[in-house]
Amino acid sequence: MTTTTPRPDRTNGRLGATVEPGDPRLDAETGVDVERLHEVLLGHYPELRRSARALMADPQFHQVDGLSMAEHRERVLAQLRALAATGSMNRAFPARFGGVDDHGGSLSRFEELVSADPSVQIKSGVQWGLFASAILHLGTERNHDEFLADALSLKVPGAFAMTETGHGSDVAAIGTTATYDPATQEFVIDTPFRAAWKDYLGNAALHGTAAVVFAQLITAAPGEGPVNHGVHALYVPLKDEHGAFLPGIGGEDDGLKGGLNGIDNGRLHFTGVRVPRTNLLNRYGDVAADGTYTSSIASPGRRFFTMLGTLVQGRVSLDGAAVGAARIGLTIAVTYANQRRQFQGATGEETVLLDYAEHQRRLLPLVASAYASGFAHEDLLALFDDVFSGRNDTEETREDLETMAAALKASSTWQALRTLQTAREACGGAGFLAENRITGLRADLDVFATFEGDNTVLLQLVGKRLLADYAKDMRHLDAVKVARLVAERAADAARYRTPLVRALQTITDVGDPRRSVGHLRDTSTQRELLVDRVETMVAEIAAGLRPAQKASPAQAAALFNQYQHQLIEAAQAHADLVQWESFTAALARIDDRGTRQVVTWLRDLFGLRLIEAHLSWYLVNGRLSAGRARTVTSYIDRLLARLRPHAQELVDAFGYEQAHLRAPIASGVEAERQDEARAWFKAQRASSDAPVPEKHVRR
Amino acid sequence: MTTTTPRPDRTNGRLGATVEPGDPRLDAETGVDVERLHEVLLGHYPELRRSARALMADPQFHQVDGLSMAEHRERVLAQLRALAATGSMNRAFPARFGGVDDHGGSLSRFEELVSADPSVQIKSGVQWGLFASAILHLGTERNHDEFLADALSLKVPGAFAMTETGHGSDVAAIGTTATYDPATQEFVIDTPFRAAWKDYLGNAALHGTAAVVFAQLITAAPGEGPVNHGVHALYVPLKDEHGAFLPGIGGEDDGLKGGLNGIDNGRLHFTGVRVPRTNLLNRYGDVAADGTYTSSIASPGRRFFTMLGTLVQGRVSLDGAAVGAARIGLTIAVTYANQRRQFQGATGEETVLLDYAEHQRRLLPLVASAYASGFAHEDLLALFDDVFSGRNDTEETREDLETMAAALKASSTWQALRTLQTAREACGGAGFLAENRITGLRADLDVFATFEGDNTVLLQLVGKRLLADYAKDMRHLDAVKVARLVAERAADAARYRTPLVRALQTITDVGDPRRSVGHLRDTSTQRELLVDRVETMVAEIAAGLRPAQKASPAQAAALFNQYQHQLIEAAQAHADLVQWESFTAALARIDDRGTRQVVTWLRDLFGLRLIEAHLSWYLVNGRLSAGRARTVTSYIDRLLARLRPHAQELVDAFGYEQAHLRAPIASGVEAERQDEARAWFKAQRASSDAPVPEKHVRR
Repeated sequence: MTTTTPRPDRTNGRLGATVEPGDPRLDAETGVDVERLHEVLLGHYPELRRSARALMADPQFHQVDGLSMAEHRERVLAQLRALAATGSMNRAFPARFGGVDDHGGSLSRFEELVSADPSVQIKSGVQWGLFASAILHLGTERNHDEFLADALSLKVPGAFAMTETGHGSDVAAIGTTATYDPATQEFVIDTPFRAAWKDYLGNAALHGTAAVVFAQLITAAPGEGPVNHGVHALYVPLKDEHGAFLPGIGGEDDGLKGGLNGIDNGRLHFTGVRVPRTNLLNRYGDVAADGTYTSSIASPGRRFFTMLGTLVQGRVSLDGAAVGAARIGLTIAVTYANQRRQFQGATGEETVLLDYAEHQRRLLPLVASAYASGFAHEDLLALFDDVFSGRNDTEETREDLETMAAALKASSTWQALRTLQTAREACGGAGFLAENRITGLRADLDVFATFEGDNTVLLQLVGKRLLADYAKDMRHLDAVKVARLVAERAADAARYRTPLVRALQTITDVGDPRRSVGHLRDTSTQRELLVDRVETMVAEIAAGLRPAQKASPAQAAALFNQYQHQLIEAAQAHADLVQWESFTAALARIDDRGTRQVVTWLRDLFGLRLIEAHLSWYLVNGRLSAGRARTVTSYIDRLLARLRPHAQELVDAFGYEQAHLRAPIASGVEAERQDEARAWFKAQRASSDAPVPEKHVRR
Repeated sequence: MTTTTPRPDRTNGRLGATVEPGDPRLDAETGVDVERLHEVLLGHYPELRRSARALMADPQFHQVDGLSMAEHRERVLAQLRALAATGSMNRAFPARFGGVDDHGGSLSRFEELVSADPSVQIKSGVQWGLFASAILHLGTERNHDEFLADALSLKVPGAFAMTETGHGSDVAAIGTTATYDPATQEFVIDTPFRAAWKDYLGNAALHGTAAVVFAQLITAAPGEGPVNHGVHALYVPLKDEHGAFLPGIGGEDDGLKGGLNGIDNGRLHFTGVRVPRTNLLNRYGDVAADGTYTSSIASPGRRFFTMLGTLVQGRVSLDGAAVGAARIGLTIAVTYANQRRQFQGATGEETVLLDYAEHQRRLLPLVASAYASGFAHEDLLALFDDVFSGRNDTEETREDLETMAAALKASSTWQALRTLQTAREACGGAGFLAENRITGLRADLDVFATFEGDNTVLLQLVGKRLLADYAKDMRHLDAVKVARLVAERAADAARYRTPLVRALQTITDVGDPRRSVGHLRDTSTQRELLVDRVETMVAEIAAGLRPAQKASPAQAAALFNQYQHQLIEAAQAHADLVQWESFTAALARIDDRGTRQVVTWLRDLFGLRLIEAHLSWYLVNGRLSAGRARTVTSYIDRLLARLRPHAQELVDAFGYEQAHLRAPIASGVEAERQDEARAWFKAQRASSDAPVPEKHVRR
């Protein structure tokens, strides 16, 4: 059931250059309708993404290679001013600040900035996603009125001063203090030691004139001793009208980085810096004039996590930007691989790179990952919007959101780095030239793996959630109830929920290896294998950790450390499963049969690669027989061969135009060069004057 | 049997900062004698490496972050002039050119340049290792007299014009032609189409005034038609005394790259460019004045591979430089991991990163790889020197050298990239700062994976050699002879030879799974498992390819393509085995018992990680039972715990000084910061005025 709409313009002739008549790529029955698949990939906010991409096609936003760090920083600041002028950056904010309270839509636009220059995206993230968002989410109307308009307009470029040199992922342990002085009704901000300097902050080296500073809030109620109420955020002006640091404030430039050099990261420290009491962003905790502390959340731990939870959008948007960067890299590498030829094949012509089985093995599973991570991201974005719009804002959905964001951010950022590196290598020396974009994207994306939560730390959060869910479910249920629960929830796709409920099913029918013997291409078989692994690993870890309940703290910590690697593996397996479930759910949204067939093969490739990567687990645990295990790899080989003719369509459906790719090797020039060379050799062979190869003479 | 020499100065106090009395790191019985281990690691040329490192400690050779591309290029050229002035770059050349014909020693020095700036190393490689070496190895005395002195002195910076835009790894297919004109006794050099432009050439954008140009040599004997004698090299002046291109020559700057921006890579093209007949580097092929072609090697194919084989040192030196870069990255990351603390542990103090099981899992196997790849490199260097010195220069040893160089270059360059990336992430945000070196090294090393032979192509060469050896051995031998041969060669370590002879043993006793059930820590068990995998894979591929003998060319090509991925996997497994064998052989060179014990654990870690990474193969093929397979991972966990106290010693033994590391986070400042912070918190806890945590108050 193929469409009759004309073949996509968005290939920009890249495909046509190497396709000969009769090529299966042109076979209508199994063909991909690129335009319609592109629509599916645009997700929940097609119009917003389209308009953001149109804006990012404007050269004024494009990264210019070879700028000095200083020039690049100034260019990005100017780009942010141009973005601010569009008004579109306020989308997530209330109407009185020019927004429409559209949290999900705002992120979808923001993610698209990555195609122009990741520095623009991340510096925008610092300004609107962290600095202004912290004022919005951690502050009250009082703070909004005072600070938000200037933050949104970029009149006040701001730093988000959370991380310290000595504390990255462990925010609760930061050293900076904000001590309330009732005599002057001010907070006094101090950096007690060098490790407590704020560090790696965008806007701190140069452009920031204010910061949201996270500090241990210390205050004493009248007649009582000082109490540390834990980490809170305060609005702190940094510089005077001449750009000089205000008294007590100092800083340093972080200097050149491995990427993102359009952002002026720097360090800040505070010595007796005073701000008015009302500069406390006081939504979750406030200090009265007399020093009395109040909070709507009694537990300091829960309060801390609630405050941090409001900032989850950073992780959500990194997930989306990582997907975008990986897709750009893949579009470049697959396009080149479809045009570039190397080594003479059996026909006498040189072979197109993507016709090599190894080249398919390197690139096509990454295309599958870029689909999986993209679909999962759209589901994450929907959940994010459900929570932040208030449509479905419960403690449980917030927890689900945080878990899903942590899992997907860790997965997709690592996938993006692997993808860009493989894409770079697949393009050979051409991939190493800055003009072909891939090395720059990889360098800029590098830090995605460790900022907004170190991926290794995030996966441990996910793992702990899996363990907690498991413990909770096990505590309340006996075997009969488990079976009933499973039946009730059977229709519930696991996309938004951690899949542990279904873990219980696995436990009840453990020991039957036959259940995994099915057709590997069946959705249910893939799901069963992927779910089983997560759940069995979690159950094993839970069993292994049981002695910790009766152990000393040191013994318990040692035991937990012993299972740390397995816990991270289980969390990664969970993240893989979430992506696979999203991919599977998305298949139903593709209404063109030929397209759905191809994308289903791609989903199968994604699922079977996951199973292949962990084949030893399935073998050791008796889930797959040796014979069945062998078929995993051979089925992958068959899928690669089936997908190969559609590789170009699958990346074209990402929908990036030349203005977004901006890589000469993906522009069609390689096909022109190859065609010219082949024509020359053909003319040589036809000519009677051309030199004869020596080996022919000798014969 | 520990030494009584004082503890190493070379730790620069990095170790002391975090070791408390009673810490097992100070346990003499299992301690590492860092100085003596360092001597072992210096390999065959300790004095040359030491002096090269001393030279590279000089700030004049160090990379300066943030230079523009133009400034970096000029700085590196000046550094090369300073190197030329030392006279030490001529070491591999004959005495009459200021050298001592020391091929292996020269490479060992050259590799050490990587610590100063990989651009210095690679640009030196272009000048002395490619341009001048091509004149030496492909030329005769006539060429040497005319061109070598100026190349060695850097009076003539030269490009090595082999690669073309359209042809990288497939050198035989380049398009550039050198057509002999007997009328003027000149060669006429032409670029027939755009894809035949020379590309990615160091020195071509800016500094090069001459080039060794590879071209299809076309000449006609008197009265006969023109014959293409295949790829030959010619010395071609590029520029006049004013720096302008000579007539018929044009070029372009490759511009900014993903790294190595101290090198001016560029493109060149030729239109009717004439050079004298005597500019042909004529060691392996010559053209007489009348146009008659002669060669000492009758077969054009063998001639081509012989010529290319003389340039194997490029791959050998990249292997060595990759080892060096990985070791620098690991020294930085392990040192930081031993000082940096994050998240409070059971004792109330924050935990040192390297005490986390996951951090050990991430870093320590890479330390093991850096030992394995280093020992393998020393063996490669010895073989290289055996061949190039003429001590053992046979067709077989040349083939062995090429195979080993291809296998190890592919392995170690990928290992270096993985290592540097993991090291970067293990250092968090600090790892992303350029000042901490790791991102820069990774960016510069990136192209190592695809230049001097794309790694994927190199592994296919290795795989084909394995297949050829297998076929040869199988043809000549029956089962009885196989058994005898195996017995004869039993004492022969597999380091220099491909291990296929022993494959036959596997085939004779196939089907006995018990033979692999031994102690995993036994050297013989590890060897058996690693060898078995290579040999079985090769045998399976050979069996799978057998139908190709009777197939059409197209069918044969399709069949080969079907096995391409497996062939590359087999080649990688072979490379792993070569590294493991070198590591194992090196253990005997460590005479201190405590040190040997620790390094043996490290070898076990290396071997078992290889087995763990391919566990599914061992399971599917019945080499390990599920029960035995489970013990692989638990034994790795035990090894990590044993090695953890020695991690610092193991990286300190690489022997890099602060002048080579130049990473603030590895200088000891992190330990100072952590100590200061801990002292501050300790004082707070002791003080009666300090704020009380809210959760304590509530109780």
